[in-house]
Amino acid sequence: MFYRDLKLGILGGGQLGRMLLQPCANLNVTTHVLDPNPEAPCSQLAHQFQTGSFKDFDTVYNFGKQVEVLTIEIEHVNVDALEKLEQEGVLVYPQSRVVRMIQDKRLQKQFYLDHGIPSADFILVEDPADARAKAGFLPAFQKVGKGGYDGYGVQFIESKADLDKCYDAPSLFEKPVDFDKEISVIVARNTEGEIKAFPPVEMVADPALNLVDYLLAPADIRKEVAERAEAIAQQVIEAFDMVGILAVELFLTQDGDLLVNEVAPRPHNSGHQSINANHTSQYEQHLRAILGLSLGEPGMKCPAAMVNLLGAEGAIGAAVYEGIEDVLAIPGTNVFLYGKTTTKPGRKMGHVTILDEDVVALKEKVKQVKQLVKVTA
Amino acid sequence: MFYRDLKLGILGGGQLGRMLLQPCANLNVTTHVLDPNPEAPCSQLAHQFQTGSFKDFDTVYNFGKQVEVLTIEIEHVNVDALEKLEQEGVLVYPQSRVVRMIQDKRLQKQFYLDHGIPSADFILVEDPADARAKAGFLPAFQKVGKGGYDGYGVQFIESKADLDKCYDAPSLFEKPVDFDKEISVIVARNTEGEIKAFPPVEMVADPALNLVDYLLAPADIRKEVAERAEAIAQQVIEAFDMVGILAVELFLTQDGDLLVNEVAPRPHNSGHQSINANHTSQYEQHLRAILGLSLGEPGMKCPAAMVNLLGAEGAIGAAVYEGIEDVLAIPGTNVFLYGKTTTKPGRKMGHVTILDEDVVALKEKVKQVKQLVKVTA
Repeated sequence: MFYRDLKLGILGGGQLGRMLLQPCANLNVTTHVLDPNPEAPCSQLAHQFQTGSFKDFDTVYNFGKQVEVLTIEIEHVNVDALEKLEQEGVLVYPQSRVVRMIQDKRLQKQFYLDHGIPSADFILVEDPADARAKAGFLPAFQKVGKGGYDGYGVQFIESKADLDKCYDAPSLFEKPVDFDKEISVIVARNTEGEIKAFPPVEMVADPALNLVDYLLAPADIRKEVAERAEAIAQQVIEAFDMVGILAVELFLTQDGDLLVNEVAPRPHNSGHQSINANHTSQYEQHLRAILGLSLGEPGMKCPAAMVNLLGAEGAIGAAVYEGIEDVLAIPGTNVFLYGKTTTKPGRKMGHVTILDEDVVALKEKVKQVKQLVKVTA
Repeated sequence: MFYRDLKLGILGGGQLGRMLLQPCANLNVTTHVLDPNPEAPCSQLAHQFQTGSFKDFDTVYNFGKQVEVLTIEIEHVNVDALEKLEQEGVLVYPQSRVVRMIQDKRLQKQFYLDHGIPSADFILVEDPADARAKAGFLPAFQKVGKGGYDGYGVQFIESKADLDKCYDAPSLFEKPVDFDKEISVIVARNTEGEIKAFPPVEMVADPALNLVDYLLAPADIRKEVAERAEAIAQQVIEAFDMVGILAVELFLTQDGDLLVNEVAPRPHNSGHQSINANHTSQYEQHLRAILGLSLGEPGMKCPAAMVNLLGAEGAIGAAVYEGIEDVLAIPGTNVFLYGKTTTKPGRKMGHVTILDEDVVALKEKVKQVKQLVKVTA
């Protein structure tokens, strides 16, 4: 395949696509990117950038016809177009059937149940009347099957008295999990069926805010737990029979059980640090998988932490990155800004990866970075 | 500086420029590249690519007026234009006076002598008549001061009898050095005068072919020698009073002395492996230096080797990379192809970086890579 420039299409031009462009350059892959935002992070860096909706059938179909291999950096794409492209010989990875299932949390949970993949107990709920009939399952999280987004689609329902706020859409009730840690395993499978998992990473929570504070790699868990987590991730990607990389987020419960929480069939926020810390980055691994190349060595070169740079509360407008100079002065830091022109509260504007052989020093540096940087307007 | 896109100009659009584009993306730097070849390695990946000669005064001047910071990835640029741009407020790093000296080997050697920087003994030679008068210095390498290129500018002159082939240009005679190893130290200095050196790397020679076979990082030398090499590199960049990175190639003589051989004030072939093996790559370090940022940690995460992928003998035309799939199957390899459309004998078409904690295994993998890859047409 290295005798010519291979054309790869990417649906979505955000930061995940942007970081996927680098290994493409290293392997002489020509990149075509589709995104509705003409100033998307990929807009200046892809060989061909097309402004358009990845949710529109015709746009995706026509875009896909120009390339030999088509992939995604976001799940919310027109899956019917993917299916038609597959039928017409375009190599679509992850496959349309995988994307279709990922788009529907009900199908996904049912799939886990059918394949013996551990995840939190659930029941399907068709509509508010059905929800009332099944109120005995509460307390639970209600998750709509399709079309969730930030601010819609997931809510906690304590008891029957809360059922007034029930979403009126096919959904599911899922039992809350009393978890000790949240971890993530990124696993890859190539066109030949070769599978390799990255070492588990940990989403370290801020105990005061009850939010993910930073990411620690490798996760601070026992070896036996790490091996079990990797085995589950491998079980999932094999059951999906998919090609590409899959991020598998898991709860480690207080009892030591591992339960699959969410999955994403694409490069993932929990794998950014692999660019600097692992022998192969998640981005290169995804590319290797979908191009039918041998998977790279996923092992780590050095312990790492990753801090997302989120738009500050109350700031909307042209982004100003305060404190980056100071972060760059901390030994072992690598800064990634995503080239987004405007910031808004909570928007992912960049990240900082920190490497240190000494995990205590690493955590100290995480604190420093978080204190130093502010993305404002 | 992170409140807006800073415009960086790069003279030269080859592989060194290409690898410099990645840290630019990570720090939201907008890149403008000038190269005479419309299909140069940077052509598809820079924000703005301009086809034109970096040796032409007007072209370089007009290109430089569009940017705030101007740098080079090749020394053979129009230095008068750089000087005028500096006078008009463009930040040019390395500075024009450094580039001017680097372009003239006679000035360079005289500078080393004046500043107590160790290098091989030499005498200046004005023309063939002067060379005859100074034949007592032979045997020596004759090196022309300016305008050397592959196949012209450096030759060995054994004795008076060989003086017929003497170059008719201002040049120098330099004593051959009986060296044990060739090593390279890349050192950086930022606008504030902060200096950091990368650990020395070794250009391992093929004893049969008497050519550089591969690069080994860190160099297999005693700690005391490594420290001396780093100190010399720091001495040179400080004496040059330059901003940016400087590759300092040194001979380690049979007697244990270190002599400066060649220097390059830009990213260098001997620093490619730093992308994967060091906490900061030479490319990011150069960018940090010229943008006035703190220098990054240059230490290594893992021992590494680097193999250049050169165009095979006898092959001219559209490049075919044989064996890359097999190389990617070796754990710890990272492949970089430069996107050059045509290959010719000896042309640098890419490189492979190999990481392994076990240096014996590392050298074994180097052999494998060299046996597997062939860049043909």
